[in-house]
Amino acid sequence: MNVHFLNGPNLNLLGQREPEIYGKATLADIEKLVREHATRCGASIEFKQSNSEGDLVSWIQQAKGVADVIVINAAAYTHTSVALRDAISATGVPAIEIHLSNIHAREEFRHHSFIAAVCRGQICGFGVNSYILALDAAVSVKGGNKVV
Amino acid sequence: MNVHFLNGPNLNLLGQREPEIYGKATLADIEKLVREHATRCGASIEFKQSNSEGDLVSWIQQAKGVADVIVINAAAYTHTSVALRDAISATGVPAIEIHLSNIHAREEFRHHSFIAAVCRGQICGFGVNSYILALDAAVSVKGGNKVV
Amino acid sequence: MNVHFLNGPNLNLLGQREPEIYGKATLADIEKLVREHATRCGASIEFKQSNSEGDLVSWIQQAKGVADVIVINAAAYTHTSVALRDAISATGVPAIEIHLSNIHAREEFRHHSFIAAVCRGQICGFGVNSYILALDAAVSVKGGNKVV
Amino acid sequence: MNVHFLNGPNLNLLGQREPEIYGKATLADIEKLVREHATRCGASIEFKQSNSEGDLVSWIQQAKGVADVIVINAAAYTHTSVALRDAISATGVPAIEIHLSNIHAREEFRHHSFIAAVCRGQICGFGVNSYILALDAAVSVKGGNKVV
Amino acid sequence: MNVHFLNGPNLNLLGQREPEIYGKATLADIEKLVREHATRCGASIEFKQSNSEGDLVSWIQQAKGVADVIVINAAAYTHTSVALRDAISATGVPAIEIHLSNIHAREEFRHHSFIAAVCRGQICGFGVNSYILALDAAVSVKGGNKVV
Amino acid sequence: MNVHFLNGPNLNLLGQREPEIYGKATLADIEKLVREHATRCGASIEFKQSNSEGDLVSWIQQAKGVADVIVINAAAYTHTSVALRDAISATGVPAIEIHLSNIHAREEFRHHSFIAAVCRGQICGFGVNSYILALDAAVSVKGGNKVV
Amino acid sequence: MNVHFLNGPNLNLLGQREPEIYGKATLADIEKLVREHATRCGASIEFKQSNSEGDLVSWIQQAKGVADVIVINAAAYTHTSVALRDAISATGVPAIEIHLSNIHAREEFRHHSFIAAVCRGQICGFGVNSYILALDAAVSVKGGNKVV
Amino acid sequence: MNVHFLNGPNLNLLGQREPEIYGKATLADIEKLVREHATRCGASIEFKQSNSEGDLVSWIQQAKGVADVIVINAAAYTHTSVALRDAISATGVPAIEIHLSNIHAREEFRHHSFIAAVCRGQICGFGVNSYILALDAAVSVKGGNKVV
Amino acid sequence: MNVHFLNGPNLNLLGQREPEIYGKATLADIEKLVREHATRCGASIEFKQSNSEGDLVSWIQQAKGVADVIVINAAAYTHTSVALRDAISATGVPAIEIHLSNIHAREEFRHHSFIAAVCRGQICGFGVNSYILALDAAVSVKGGNKVV
Amino acid sequence: MNVHFLNGPNLNLLGQREPEIYGKATLADIEKLVREHATRCGASIEFKQSNSEGDLVSWIQQAKGVADVIVINAAAYTHTSVALRDAISATGVPAIEIHLSNIHAREEFRHHSFIAAVCRGQICGFGVNSYILALDAAVSVKGGNKVV
Amino acid sequence: MNVHFLNGPNLNLLGQREPEIYGKATLADIEKLVREHATRCGASIEFKQSNSEGDLVSWIQQAKGVADVIVINAAAYTHTSVALRDAISATGVPAIEIHLSNIHAREEFRHHSFIAAVCRGQICGFGVNSYILALDAAVSVKGGNKVV
Amino acid sequence: MNVHFLNGPNLNLLGQREPEIYGKATLADIEKLVREHATRCGASIEFKQSNSEGDLVSWIQQAKGVADVIVINAAAYTHTSVALRDAISATGVPAIEIHLSNIHAREEFRHHSFIAAVCRGQICGFGVNSYILALDAAVSVKGGNKVV
Repeated sequence: MNVHFLNGPNLNLLGQREPEIYGKATLADIEKLVREHATRCGASIEFKQSNSEGDLVSWIQQAKGVADVIVINAAAYTHTSVALRDAISATGVPAIEIHLSNIHAREEFRHHSFIAAVCRGQICGFGVNSYILALDAAVSVKGGNKVV
Repeated sequence: MNVHFLNGPNLNLLGQREPEIYGKATLADIEKLVREHATRCGASIEFKQSNSEGDLVSWIQQAKGVADVIVINAAAYTHTSVALRDAISATGVPAIEIHLSNIHAREEFRHHSFIAAVCRGQICGFGVNSYILALDAAVSVKGGNKVV
Repeated sequence: MNVHFLNGPNLNLLGQREPEIYGKATLADIEKLVREHATRCGASIEFKQSNSEGDLVSWIQQAKGVADVIVINAAAYTHTSVALRDAISATGVPAIEIHLSNIHAREEFRHHSFIAAVCRGQICGFGVNSYILALDAAVSVKGGNKVV
Repeated sequence: MNVHFLNGPNLNLLGQREPEIYGKATLADIEKLVREHATRCGASIEFKQSNSEGDLVSWIQQAKGVADVIVINAAAYTHTSVALRDAISATGVPAIEIHLSNIHAREEFRHHSFIAAVCRGQICGFGVNSYILALDAAVSVKGGNKVV
Repeated sequence: MNVHFLNGPNLNLLGQREPEIYGKATLADIEKLVREHATRCGASIEFKQSNSEGDLVSWIQQAKGVADVIVINAAAYTHTSVALRDAISATGVPAIEIHLSNIHAREEFRHHSFIAAVCRGQICGFGVNSYILALDAAVSVKGGNKVV
Repeated sequence: MNVHFLNGPNLNLLGQREPEIYGKATLADIEKLVREHATRCGASIEFKQSNSEGDLVSWIQQAKGVADVIVINAAAYTHTSVALRDAISATGVPAIEIHLSNIHAREEFRHHSFIAAVCRGQICGFGVNSYILALDAAVSVKGGNKVV
Repeated sequence: MNVHFLNGPNLNLLGQREPEIYGKATLADIEKLVREHATRCGASIEFKQSNSEGDLVSWIQQAKGVADVIVINAAAYTHTSVALRDAISATGVPAIEIHLSNIHAREEFRHHSFIAAVCRGQICGFGVNSYILALDAAVSVKGGNKVV
Repeated sequence: MNVHFLNGPNLNLLGQREPEIYGKATLADIEKLVREHATRCGASIEFKQSNSEGDLVSWIQQAKGVADVIVINAAAYTHTSVALRDAISATGVPAIEIHLSNIHAREEFRHHSFIAAVCRGQICGFGVNSYILALDAAVSVKGGNKVV
Repeated sequence: MNVHFLNGPNLNLLGQREPEIYGKATLADIEKLVREHATRCGASIEFKQSNSEGDLVSWIQQAKGVADVIVINAAAYTHTSVALRDAISATGVPAIEIHLSNIHAREEFRHHSFIAAVCRGQICGFGVNSYILALDAAVSVKGGNKVV
Repeated sequence: MNVHFLNGPNLNLLGQREPEIYGKATLADIEKLVREHATRCGASIEFKQSNSEGDLVSWIQQAKGVADVIVINAAAYTHTSVALRDAISATGVPAIEIHLSNIHAREEFRHHSFIAAVCRGQICGFGVNSYILALDAAVSVKGGNKVV
Repeated sequence: MNVHFLNGPNLNLLGQREPEIYGKATLADIEKLVREHATRCGASIEFKQSNSEGDLVSWIQQAKGVADVIVINAAAYTHTSVALRDAISATGVPAIEIHLSNIHAREEFRHHSFIAAVCRGQICGFGVNSYILALDAAVSVKGGNKVV
Repeated sequence: MNVHFLNGPNLNLLGQREPEIYGKATLADIEKLVREHATRCGASIEFKQSNSEGDLVSWIQQAKGVADVIVINAAAYTHTSVALRDAISATGVPAIEIHLSNIHAREEFRHHSFIAAVCRGQICGFGVNSYILALDAAVSVKGGNKVV
């Protein structure tokens, strides 16, 4: 079981960035927690971050044939990127959309996600736990436990 | 640790209702799975369903001082009910919004949730697992593991 | 052949309520006319009214396996209820939407029907005759006379 | 009792045209069924079709003083023609709008009808039966059985 | 002189519910103040609350022939209920719309009221005094002191 | 206790102007009624009218340190003036918005008020009584009876 | 000096058609008045009517090199026809848009004119006089008296 | 026969102001032409200009009982002033809206007129001739030659 | 191989009509170029133009069973005609939408095409070459070289 | 070098008015700072404020032939006044739009400026410095240093 | 004659990616076909692909002075990138927009192209042939055969 | 005092790119002018340009703890990038938004800036001077001269 965690722009600032919205954990902290949980689940993970939309598109493409599930926190690109949406559709790897904050409780322009419609599901608002919950969800997806 | 699972209109038809969208499990099946998982988590639960908006409003109110977390699948009322939103705000019990299907991948009018902005987070698209994941999220909420 | 006529909020006031819009017949008058016509058609009917959205949802659910066709005048809930729409989809009983008045000639917010897209057809603007015409339509639906 | 059935663009293709939407009956088949039903009702009918908006406008005008009721399936012009609306208002002959398919269940642009607000009522979604039901409705209109 | 005060969803939580928005008085406190003021005005009152849209519809219907004026704080249903609007139109009892808070200073979706157009007037933003002012307004309505 | 009543454009025509909407009382009549009621309340009032947006802005400014409450019927400027809104915010004197007619039952463009969000509350639809009710509301505001 | 008066759909019904909106004069009456006025102005005119958009397009094309000015009452096609707009642009003959009624005081969809932007000006609301005024305007256009 | 010509903001700059849009005549030139034409028509006129919305409102009010018709070129206030609209409604003097340029061929925000719906008609796009044509229209209005 | 070229309103004016937008070639010139190219491709063509929407609808219908591909420059009707769209759907002949100018670089209302969604593809902005390119595209469609 | 600083409604309240938004400096303080800076730049200035839209229009007109540049803080009229826009266009004096606060970070209705499109540029969000920066910008404009 | 073919995000997946929408040819297959056709046309080409918006911007810039025509399939960036639009405007090299699929027949958000307005024309819906047709169009552009 | 000037896509083309909009200075010219002015102000600067959104995001992040103020001309990304907005919020370095041209006088889609709401202020329309003015503004920001 292999899960790719892809993180979008500004998530490398976690911990320093508006902690009242995003919490105090750094991205490295989150990666550590996710790796520990993956070990418990018997899963291997990749965990990457980029500020570049093009990198994220390429990483989604590269997950094809390698990852069983993609967990993606596309951050700001969630709301503006058709390219990420097309990448997910094109590769066909099941994807789960996550957010640290509850995007539906923030500015109007954060309520719409271009990638939601091509993901299996969305988990948002649980801070670091959004990652953990997504890994659990990914495991069940992999296990043939059909979501929907 | 006490969690109230509140289910909205037509969820009593699960299993019979459009299984290609909502899966084959009945609501009783789901309740059973949730109860088993709650036992594992050391949590107690209540699990109710109603087709009436007013009942759901009242149940949210009654959760005050009793439940640590409300997990709510408001179904159709998600998209039309300001009353549910006000009930959640008014009682102040942390709430988690869930959906079996990925509402962001369905008709336009299902993309907007009146309750999302007053919930801690949203989990949708994972079928029965949306309930299980929400219970896990609830436990961490209760544990002081602040979400966002 | 069994047809359920479900009537929504305020239709219990017919006859007293704005007769220039809704006519002078009471709901009991309408029921009587419908029963007489049903007898002529060799059909049996149920005829109910409620001011509660939840009741209407439940009645639609209960029609499953009992009614061949549902004829629904959802009145005000036509324009605001996703729950009724989901109930009709979920039970799968063919449904016909009716209105006494021509909703398309009234306020803008009455032009949109949440249930229209999941009904077989819509008949509106013919006063009491909307019910009679719907029964005729229902009979042809039942008779395998596929409506589009 | 005289009823004019006016049919708009592309209805001359019925039977060949997308039968999964419009059914297998040709327009001639429909005319035959309507004529038979008219005989039963003691009504005389005219039955015409044109692809030209101007022809339809003129036919509505010519119905003045001749027809008791106009039954109009304006097809595509339903959604784009203010001229048909004005013609109906101007002649003052009671009109009934019909459609073979349920226009409210199709593309967004088919939900709005320019003529609905000046017709007595709308019947849609019942295939060939939409014509038969409209004739029944027309008879009751003529009989002083005031609709609305 | 008889006035019915109808209170919508979540108003039973007053005093506990977000006091910075709705004040500290409970609904019982408000009822007491209104009753005292009614005594001063020589009016009798009924004072009810429900979380159910259907109940509120029915209570408006029952006011016909009994109440001289309805004062309604429809709370969340203000913004979503066509059924309440139709009930007020249908019964024809003069109605006054009130709100504790200034709905025009809150979220966008609270600015629109479905019932405003069928009420005599609207009083909002004065907390408990909204009720007292409405009773004064009701008395003048009753006294033939035509409003508007 | 000092209350400033500020009246906007065309209110000097009251009594002559569309009496079916605005009633038969002249502005002088209204001022007289308000003065009598103020005497009963132990309040002093100022009562002014202007057709000029700039005058109204200046009068609101001048109320600072003089008036305890401003009651404003901004008439047409209600719907178009950001300057009045800013004046009310800037002076910080509590303000109450009133209208003779029920603006929510009139043309769409009269439903939105630029000043509502910076006033304590809104009273509309009660004709002359809107002024009397506003004075009562003003007294309670002054008395420390906090209006949410 | 030659002016073409082109009349759109349903104007052949003038006099019979909703006289409270369009007046009692028939189109023949109007033509007579326009011809008399043209004689006074030393102008020759053509005066035509059609219910067909295509005819009107063709007539505008034919005016090229023949008419000095086109006066067009496009009636319902005003609001729906890009083809008329293109015809006016393409021929380059100065055009004046007229309407019997004040289109800006009627339904929302009549406020927009597809042809206004390619005409010299618009005259509406003066009944038969709209034609006379347009002829006067046409004369001044022809006389080199440039109309912005 | 008395006609008031009221001119709005910036029209005092005519001749200097963007002559490619508004022509080379000054407002004094226009007044002279209008006075000459009025003499020919046996009409007396008033001709005023102000940059102040309040002045224009007051002048409309003062026309009551004095002018038979108001001709108003409200310039920029056309698009933003509800106060002018209310003044015209309130005084009840027939009003004609004019513009030098064709407002429907300019920026989107100039297409909508707040006063159009309460005027008898609109004449725009004929430069100075818009004034002359309006005077002719006014004479016919006065002569009982009912417009509309 | 047979291709029908159908040309909409005002295209008969090509060469005279706004050459800076549409070029200097007449429609006859274009037909000649297309015929020459067809000869080179071994295709036969029909080439027609009408200002009437109804004619175009009928010609599309007549192409059924005769033409292998329809190339349609619907001109102004592109943006307003649902009837053309339905005709194309109904006949099922593969259609290619063309325009001389780049409609996406012109007025907003020219950006939307009612027929685009039922055509195989769109070619616009290449002047006369749009026709030549469309013929090439048509040939490949016919050759089973599946487009899309 | 002569620069006119024109200040709109409520700016006379600066220093008292919401200092957290507009700062503590009074308008007199600002004028003093601007005059000192003007002396340094070798420029003369005029500095005026009015609550009246008409005054501001007239002052812009009067700047013609006198001022080299207008610096305008139109305050609330920024968002509602077409008259100011037309005045700036009509006089042709280069204008610079300024605001104390960052209007793009405030309420939605403050994001749009009617005058921006006819000004050379916009400076907002720098408090008193917005005035100083505008004077520097004005000097460079005057010096032929073309600001696109 | 030199033509640059620039391909946007996810086009490197062609052949694997949703073949029912995009066909079975890989991007290498397309390049090969284009090169062969270029040889026939006596043109040289460059053919590049990137998932990065910035790369595409830079490549457009680099085409200046090198390429005679740019053919761009911007894929997802078509709908979201102002930067690509500005790059095309800025370099001034004639550009042709292409798409494999008919973007006007897909999701609403794919109907709008930010680059269309600065390209010469658009070709979409012909699969691989869109590239071949674009090369033909490019040749004619180069040949001075002006495409309006 | 350290100021980072970050320049977005296509600004590397300045001088060549549409000089009627952006002026003739190259980016190197601008950098030179800014450096000279910085020397006069006693400030050090960094001056960078990229066509890549991701680079700009990263540069904003790197400014943290290094720059006192960021001056950003985000060019096309102004209107499409949530990522830049988040980067500015996240780093917390005061930012000033600049543009060479007056974005409010250009296409509608350039009026909205995603970054404006998180910057201190906006300066646009002054060509090269926008940079100089921004540096002056930056100095005052640094000096504790709080900009609202």
